[in-house]
Amino acid sequence: MAPSYVPNGNLSAGSSVTGRFANVYSEVQSSRVHHSLPLPSVLKTSFSLVDGPRSSAAGNPDEIAKLFPHLFGQPSATLVPSETPLPDQKLKIGVVLSGGQAPGGHNVISGIFDYLQERAKGSTLYGFRGGPAGIMKCKYVELNSDYIYPYRNQGGFDMICSGRDKIETPEQFKQAEETTKKLDLDGLVVIGGDDSNTNACLLAENFRSKNLKTRVIGCPKTIDGDLKCKEVPTSFGFDTACKIYSEMIGNVMVDARSTGKYYHFVRLMGRAASHITLECALQTHPNITIIGEEVAAKKLTLKNVTDYIVDVICKRAAVNYNYGVILIPEGLIDFIPEVQQLIAELNEILAHDIVDEGGLWKKKLTDQSLKLFEFLPQAIQEQLMLERDPHGNVQVAKIETEKMLIQMAETELEKRKQEGKYRGEFRGQSHFFGYEGRCGLPTNFDATYCYALGYGAGALLHSGKTGLISSVRNLCAPVEDWIVGGTALTSLMDVERRHGKFKPVIKKAMVELQGAPFKKFASLRDEWALKNCYVSPGPIQFSGPGSDAVSHTLRLELESQA
Amino acid sequence: MAPSYVPNGNLSAGSSVTGRFANVYSEVQSSRVHHSLPLPSVLKTSFSLVDGPRSSAAGNPDEIAKLFPHLFGQPSATLVPSETPLPDQKLKIGVVLSGGQAPGGHNVISGIFDYLQERAKGSTLYGFRGGPAGIMKCKYVELNSDYIYPYRNQGGFDMICSGRDKIETPEQFKQAEETTKKLDLDGLVVIGGDDSNTNACLLAENFRSKNLKTRVIGCPKTIDGDLKCKEVPTSFGFDTACKIYSEMIGNVMVDARSTGKYYHFVRLMGRAASHITLECALQTHPNITIIGEEVAAKKLTLKNVTDYIVDVICKRAAVNYNYGVILIPEGLIDFIPEVQQLIAELNEILAHDIVDEGGLWKKKLTDQSLKLFEFLPQAIQEQLMLERDPHGNVQVAKIETEKMLIQMAETELEKRKQEGKYRGEFRGQSHFFGYEGRCGLPTNFDATYCYALGYGAGALLHSGKTGLISSVRNLCAPVEDWIVGGTALTSLMDVERRHGKFKPVIKKAMVELQGAPFKKFASLRDEWALKNCYVSPGPIQFSGPGSDAVSHTLRLELESQA
Repeated sequence: MAPSYVPNGNLSAGSSVTGRFANVYSEVQSSRVHHSLPLPSVLKTSFSLVDGPRSSAAGNPDEIAKLFPHLFGQPSATLVPSETPLPDQKLKIGVVLSGGQAPGGHNVISGIFDYLQERAKGSTLYGFRGGPAGIMKCKYVELNSDYIYPYRNQGGFDMICSGRDKIETPEQFKQAEETTKKLDLDGLVVIGGDDSNTNACLLAENFRSKNLKTRVIGCPKTIDGDLKCKEVPTSFGFDTACKIYSEMIGNVMVDARSTGKYYHFVRLMGRAASHITLECALQTHPNITIIGEEVAAKKLTLKNVTDYIVDVICKRAAVNYNYGVILIPEGLIDFIPEVQQLIAELNEILAHDIVDEGGLWKKKLTDQSLKLFEFLPQAIQEQLMLERDPHGNVQVAKIETEKMLIQMAETELEKRKQEGKYRGEFRGQSHFFGYEGRCGLPTNFDATYCYALGYGAGALLHSGKTGLISSVRNLCAPVEDWIVGGTALTSLMDVERRHGKFKPVIKKAMVELQGAPFKKFASLRDEWALKNCYVSPGPIQFSGPGSDAVSHTLRLELESQA
Repeated sequence: MAPSYVPNGNLSAGSSVTGRFANVYSEVQSSRVHHSLPLPSVLKTSFSLVDGPRSSAAGNPDEIAKLFPHLFGQPSATLVPSETPLPDQKLKIGVVLSGGQAPGGHNVISGIFDYLQERAKGSTLYGFRGGPAGIMKCKYVELNSDYIYPYRNQGGFDMICSGRDKIETPEQFKQAEETTKKLDLDGLVVIGGDDSNTNACLLAENFRSKNLKTRVIGCPKTIDGDLKCKEVPTSFGFDTACKIYSEMIGNVMVDARSTGKYYHFVRLMGRAASHITLECALQTHPNITIIGEEVAAKKLTLKNVTDYIVDVICKRAAVNYNYGVILIPEGLIDFIPEVQQLIAELNEILAHDIVDEGGLWKKKLTDQSLKLFEFLPQAIQEQLMLERDPHGNVQVAKIETEKMLIQMAETELEKRKQEGKYRGEFRGQSHFFGYEGRCGLPTNFDATYCYALGYGAGALLHSGKTGLISSVRNLCAPVEDWIVGGTALTSLMDVERRHGKFKPVIKKAMVELQGAPFKKFASLRDEWALKNCYVSPGPIQFSGPGSDAVSHTLRLELESQA
């Protein structure tokens, strides 16, 4: 359905687009701007909301009930076709992008906008600039169809930009209230990850508790794929990012097999959970894949991980394969308890003691940490000692895990060679695929999914809902059969104890070792290790074969629930 | 035109393909296998060859004439439609892939194979395994349609793999002769870059001089784009590699603009010439692009390059843009004379002297080199001192130029900040886009171009030609109007003096500062520097908008010749 009010401009390749900084569009970008998106059937008709049963929380419901007295227990809502349309109403809605970028964010905004244009004529949509700070400082732009137009189906968050601020303190809540009053907002859509949606729920509770009319709806955004639950089957951006990384991994695999002399160690974005790494493995069939959650569950040490890698390399060398591809999640180090321990001890020592060149300071390390420190390659030792953040702490994020593992594999392979247990040649090549995946043109899946999320968020606000996260389900079915609704944010929450107080948090969805995607991977990885079962997904296609594929993770999870 | 003898197998997504290591194909790979390629009109009919005028050499024709007495002066040949087909003949042809991978290599082989199947029925095609070493060791596979089938339109060189050996010594020439005699070869197609095509010409001369029947035809392969001349407008693989890199650069640009806080320093593959960097700049419009040939022509120092970068960063900071994208060719350092000088001095010192911790050894450096050494970031100093190849030489290729420039920019910006000349915030992010571009699925352009190169090579051998490079021209016209023929390899040659002897070389085609692509770039770069004119080419499409685009470099060069 091509929204009819979109100016049918001559946005051909090479033509200028005002609004997006007088940018010039490539042929593909231009064709995407014109691409019309299908809507789930229920969003094409009049609808009403059907409430489900009273909800609880992901953990500690009593504490969540205390923290959200006005919202706790809200049912999920599902849109169903209805003969009676919602009353025509002029709404004033704000929207904000929060946190790191994910492909499809612009389409969520387009979806909200189009909903308002079609179902609540005369409504106004404000885009808060630069993330939650834009709400607090009342920095916004009024979005109209000309403004939104060039961003349709485009990557990035540059329409209104994002930010990482949180609305936390009483003063900040006060500022947010003032903004909503000043703009006379009926509703606010917060597009963000777990933290941002927690924040959205706190805002919803706060507004409700003060009898303010502003309602708040969240939208699940993160390429990391760690914001999901049964009713919110995936976060947007995950599909596109994984497909971009998998294109690159597939290319590197063909390269590895063609030259036959390199081991490519590929680190993939995704700090907290290893969903991206797992999905890319399912798409490409690498020889070795490290999943952080498994490392943590099995309490593996860095030596264990190195040995696993080196064992496979030795077995491959025995059949004359001196090449391969290895996937590593960005957050690997965070999953290894002994590394965390070492870093904690180093932070303590660096803060209080003198680090002498002779190495006497090392005596302050526990035995286990000393052993690990000595096991680390020199470059990593130096990185641990020298690179510190403004608080003087070791910067774990800056450690190039892929290079570290290459060096550790080299050392171990050298040892085995001398013991006569390995006769191959090892050459490591390191890669980090990160930023190039966050801002790509959204896939057909993400473009359509986001549009439905936004359109649905508009419907929820129009229906007077608050404290819900926009949820679109049944995603492996044809788009017309997708189920649209909202899920109580409180139902995703648990509490964490911080500074002696309970804080609500949406628990990150980690890779489940009993879940269908991991089990599928685990059943195949030994074959992938020794044979070469590489798959090249190729570049994302917007039409023709492969253009409508959903991620393996999503498909396997939905199939296992069916 | 889908060659009819290709088994119409059920190569659907997920099905196994034997021959390519029992690989599983993605939906996109699978659709590409089935993709039928158009041929230039002249290859669809009977044809004859029309010779052009006698040719000369790219330089020192007298020396080239002496080195190639049997081949020098050969005219170029062009295929023209003819009523009389070439006589039906059963040919025995060998093919070899030489040097680094480039998308499309498999299609050159498919093209040769299909030519033989259609025009010289009963012919045999041998694929030499692992590059020129396969010729010398007579390691080969007989290629048939089932074997070739799964590699059609696929990336990589894994059908027969490649290698970097050269056929140089009299013994090696002897081995090559023995192989051609053993297999009774009528012809050999060498798919490679400048060195490999020089080698092809030496082989052709050698075989001709000994009255052997084996003829040799070259094919222009290199993603670097530095093997070209008027009659060979581009080397294959350049188009695909640049489009893959440009996709990533475009994504990083959207990321930069969305977050507004990073300068992305992107190093791009391409050691000798900066064509890739220039093409990617024309596709994406970065804020800063360093072209090695310009650095060399203007005799810039590393300090000059740093200052240029920092000047732009400061000007952008003044208009509140504290982000940007900077492209750097892999071979930058090789273009800076002072760096070459420093490295030569270091090699000398490291080979003969003791490097004392106190730094007394530095007194052995010339003033200019000492100044440069002190100007380098410490990490680069250490890299220069520690990382050496087996001959004890500094490993220039291992220097991460993009990280070096980030550190030098940081230092200079800090200085300017203290002088009150800069008020921005600078955060650098480094990227290297290399291996992921060499083995992608070939674009429609590369797939079709390579198929025509191979088909044409078959035609040249069938016509009894030797010492030519397959040339397909008029590449901006519709495929049916492409001109097919062969160009005398000796006409691309010059000589270099090595060890007191003249050696023939095909001169690398460098970026011409007076050429249309560079001039276009130079006319726009100031605007790109300060405004944000970013373009996101998006992922390579195999159908629909953008799927038939040719590279800017090719288009601008052909337009300027027209």
